Amino acid sequence: MMAEPAAALGIRLRLLAEAQGVSAAQVIPDHRVGDYRDLDALLAITEDCAVVTFDHEHVPTEHLYSLESRLAVRPGPEALVYAQDKAQMRSRLSAIDVPCPRHAVVADAAEVAQFGFPAVLKTTRGGYDGKGVWVVNSVADCVAAFEAAAASGVQILAEELVDFTRELSALVARSPSGQIAAWPVVQSTQLDGICHEVIAPAPGLDPELAVEAQQIAMRVAGELGVTGVLAVELFETRDGRVLVNELAMRPHNTGHWTQDGSVTSQFENHLRAVLDLPLGAPDARAPWTVMVNILGSPVHTGHLYDGYPHAFARDPRLKVHLYGKDLRPGRKVGHVNAYGDDLDDCLDRARHAAAWFRGDLGDESE
Amino acid sequence: MMAEPAAALGIRLRLLAEAQGVSAAQVIPDHRVGDYRDLDALLAITEDCAVVTFDHEHVPTEHLYSLESRLAVRPGPEALVYAQDKAQMRSRLSAIDVPCPRHAVVADAAEVAQFGFPAVLKTTRGGYDGKGVWVVNSVADCVAAFEAAAASGVQILAEELVDFTRELSALVARSPSGQIAAWPVVQSTQLDGICHEVIAPAPGLDPELAVEAQQIAMRVAGELGVTGVLAVELFETRDGRVLVNELAMRPHNTGHWTQDGSVTSQFENHLRAVLDLPLGAPDARAPWTVMVNILGSPVHTGHLYDGYPHAFARDPRLKVHLYGKDLRPGRKVGHVNAYGDDLDDCLDRARHAAAWFRGDLGDESE
Repeated sequence: MMAEPAAALGIRLRLLAEAQGVSAAQVIPDHRVGDYRDLDALLAITEDCAVVTFDHEHVPTEHLYSLESRLAVRPGPEALVYAQDKAQMRSRLSAIDVPCPRHAVVADAAEVAQFGFPAVLKTTRGGYDGKGVWVVNSVADCVAAFEAAAASGVQILAEELVDFTRELSALVARSPSGQIAAWPVVQSTQLDGICHEVIAPAPGLDPELAVEAQQIAMRVAGELGVTGVLAVELFETRDGRVLVNELAMRPHNTGHWTQDGSVTSQFENHLRAVLDLPLGAPDARAPWTVMVNILGSPVHTGHLYDGYPHAFARDPRLKVHLYGKDLRPGRKVGHVNAYGDDLDDCLDRARHAAAWFRGDLGDESE
Repeated sequence: MMAEPAAALGIRLRLLAEAQGVSAAQVIPDHRVGDYRDLDALLAITEDCAVVTFDHEHVPTEHLYSLESRLAVRPGPEALVYAQDKAQMRSRLSAIDVPCPRHAVVADAAEVAQFGFPAVLKTTRGGYDGKGVWVVNSVADCVAAFEAAAASGVQILAEELVDFTRELSALVARSPSGQIAAWPVVQSTQLDGICHEVIAPAPGLDPELAVEAQQIAMRVAGELGVTGVLAVELFETRDGRVLVNELAMRPHNTGHWTQDGSVTSQFENHLRAVLDLPLGAPDARAPWTVMVNILGSPVHTGHLYDGYPHAFARDPRLKVHLYGKDLRPGRKVGHVNAYGDDLDDCLDRARHAAAWFRGDLGDESE
């Protein structure tokens, strides 16, 4: 999705694609297939480039340091490690007084019991979209987590199960010179651990809490030296606080609404940030924007391109983003954005369209 | 610029590029270099495609008919001929009672004299951006036009020199099923025959005249069977009428403001139209949008990518579009869009940015 603002701005991209024909390779002419864990591939693809950036956090830290001796790596390894390693992230955020859930690195189930049940166990590295996360209520529940950690050679972080009313996301972009742009704080809804729906701005959010969430994201970006987009996922607790859940240092699913709902999209500002250009305004262009992901359903057969006639005819203001992927159960294949003056109307439009593409509209679509 | 909405919608484009490295080839992976006048190249590039469309009107009419036996050609040759041949355009528009300047095909200077001076002479085919157009006040003035016409084997059309107060453009998209979306009528300013600045909507335009201009564009699109975007360039006369000046059947410079100023851009609706998908809403997203072209100056050395720091720092809401071309005198290398609530502010922002990129800001930029 970075290819779209790059085309507009005339910025040349070169892509290391994980395989032929993947989404990004469909829209970036200058691409080669290679493995992001292969240092030679990384060195070859970045030759003659001014800057290297990422659309995931899984490039090995030692490779990032090797790259850094050749060109600007943004975000750099010193920052990116906090998005790669949850134990380091918790330790660093606590050190700079950012509110987090109670947490501890645990070696076995006995230590989890000592930490207290219920708890959330997470592998310190490698998890995403609900993978590598377990909610445990007993010693017996802990087996799977420690087996997975042992198999992949990572540690387990235990966290309190936060009593939250909803999840929020504070998205910022930061340039190497230190400029920060903060988008409005949004509400995100997860489904099976995967971001499903985002409402911008978060409805009914206490303005002071919204400012606190933005300040947390700006502080984290500054203290950690982030360049590019940083998404800070937060819990809003029942007792009116915000606690940091996760960090992502790249354009993030909770920021897809900005493509159609904001003056400057997260993808454009990520590009501008990693190139150390002044950032674009992050203001919303409409009172409300709703983003709903299109996820392959395990039980229904959805529509993709053949879903356009109905979706577009029903809603001429709908903005659809499809990723050039086939529809498979559980796979994110696109998202829709609906913006406007009325939140209920935006929710209805975006949910209807996403359900239609997913194929689970039920009888109402007949 | 069609590559951007195509990427968002997951629509695969294949490009016939006139040379390696041209703008479109920089952003469309699936491209081949070839000549649009070469039928074999056209047949080869369109193999397995569902639809073929164009970003200029110069593909020979007979080739369009050959292509039409293989796949959908949109706009089709029956429509496109009216954008290719100004004599046929005038004759057809007059037949459907669309208001045009007085006109006649003329064989020599004597016939121009009979038509009456001052007159505008145009080659019936091949002209664009002020090329192939002469304003003549005497028989002697006519020599260049008839020499050019003889050299290229085309005819000369004489038109009255219209006493206009400004130029307008009515942009519509039409699908093969007949749906039409009409963007707000804009004011365009030419500089040396090249579109230079567009204000959307046209300031102070009589609402009845705006509706008439939109109705003219819709009628032309329907009667001529246009598919895709149609730009109808109009003169607003001193006595309060609109007269059709030119037609273009493709996304047009007077519609570049829609990329940032409208719910659906001309490029997205062109794609949707040629694919016979329901069209997106053409409403403006802001009270005013101003587009100014970035043209290489004959006397100044401009900035392109190195112009970004100042341009972005001065105006975080500015939207810049650069085409991946080098800056050369008279060459369109990009454009800027500025939208907002205040027209003077938008004009200032867009003009300043375009002048900065062009390099002709003068002392005020020092």
